[in-house]
Amino acid sequence: MLRKGERIDQLYAEDIQIIQSSEVFSFSIDAVLLANFARVPKRGKIIDLCAGNGAIGLFLSRKTAAAIDQIELQPRLADMGQRSIALNNLEEQLTMHELDLKNTFDVFRADSADLVVCNPPYFKELPASQKNPNPHLAIARHEIHATLEDVVSVSAKLLKMNGRFAMVHRPDRFLEIVDCLRENRIAPKRIQFVYPKPGKEANTLLIEGIKDGKSEGLRFLPPLYTYDQSGSYSADLQEMLYGN
Amino acid sequence: MLRKGERIDQLYAEDIQIIQSSEVFSFSIDAVLLANFARVPKRGKIIDLCAGNGAIGLFLSRKTAAAIDQIELQPRLADMGQRSIALNNLEEQLTMHELDLKNTFDVFRADSADLVVCNPPYFKELPASQKNPNPHLAIARHEIHATLEDVVSVSAKLLKMNGRFAMVHRPDRFLEIVDCLRENRIAPKRIQFVYPKPGKEANTLLIEGIKDGKSEGLRFLPPLYTYDQSGSYSADLQEMLYGN
Repeated sequence: MLRKGERIDQLYAEDIQIIQSSEVFSFSIDAVLLANFARVPKRGKIIDLCAGNGAIGLFLSRKTAAAIDQIELQPRLADMGQRSIALNNLEEQLTMHELDLKNTFDVFRADSADLVVCNPPYFKELPASQKNPNPHLAIARHEIHATLEDVVSVSAKLLKMNGRFAMVHRPDRFLEIVDCLRENRIAPKRIQFVYPKPGKEANTLLIEGIKDGKSEGLRFLPPLYTYDQSGSYSADLQEMLYGN
Repeated sequence: MLRKGERIDQLYAEDIQIIQSSEVFSFSIDAVLLANFARVPKRGKIIDLCAGNGAIGLFLSRKTAAAIDQIELQPRLADMGQRSIALNNLEEQLTMHELDLKNTFDVFRADSADLVVCNPPYFKELPASQKNPNPHLAIARHEIHATLEDVVSVSAKLLKMNGRFAMVHRPDRFLEIVDCLRENRIAPKRIQFVYPKPGKEANTLLIEGIKDGKSEGLRFLPPLYTYDQSGSYSADLQEMLYGN
């Protein structure tokens, strides 16, 4: 079940086990935040782009009967994700596709998804940008194989009319994100900022949009904090990670 | 000093007295929030658009030696504001101008302000919109005489290159606001959301932009709460209203 350097981690709140590797990829708090932020359809189809080792789809499986398709470019990560699906006996509901985003429509039909979720690479790929020397981590974090525009345009095409898009990203790219969504017919609807702890500036952005939605009615949800003043996970994060 | 229906209120934190009238206009928490949010130049020129009874300029006078010009359309409000300036012996620093925004450049030069602050009417003026039957309050709250575009375009023209614009508004108009700023050469730079209390969605937006600023580097400040869970003013608001 496990390859060299891999371990099994647990998300206690959802009773999910995940195969991880510090050398290749481990899910982050951002995946937990996105899985909690996204409003899932009861049934239908959910697609997770830039799925990594598949954490978000695994977490979402506990909230819905919808089919969940995961798309991941890197063979090593897709393989870990496929084995995590088996480990949790979720083969009926979840499917991992080792697939470049550019080839999405070789496998998926346009206008077929009720929800697309994405935890994309956050950092622009610039000649001078410092990248992780580990290529697995560099591809997951930098826009080497998928840019914001790639991710959003594929998502918009995958979504049914009035389907939802939910993404986690960085607040310093906020304006670029809302512009990109609107250029791709996704109307921003719900936004939540995450602050590392009280008194600090936001370091994470959760955003939901609706394909062909009206431009009115944008809401800003109550802020989330990752840690409290004492340096422990906040009550909100503890609930996401460990349950009640 | 006082006309019929007027009273003198005090902002304890800044030791400022303000002439108000429940029939005409009283400053709101939003004015206090904006005065605390705006980063004031040490000297130079500050202009307050849609100044009402002049509360924001009075509060800012305690933080800077800059000249503060206040522009208010309604004669009754401008008159109250002028008398509050005298009441606080601030005639050397503050000047109230009874002036329609459309005529701003009859009195002011373009590219002359280091900071423009504005607490504009929040609500779109639509045929069906419910307005306050009191015309003083209707004009202050609805875009009857000044729209968002009016306020921002006048502000942009008033500002020197790299001058700052700071505004308080409603989060549901957020996308329209950032679009309008950018169309008028003001780059959004600092944003702070205000939540009525923990667990509620944001109901107030504070936004600062820089004229001809770079598009990078948008920051989201720590959230503010108006009230705490017990219904008392939050510690942040208490400090703004009553000082330490």
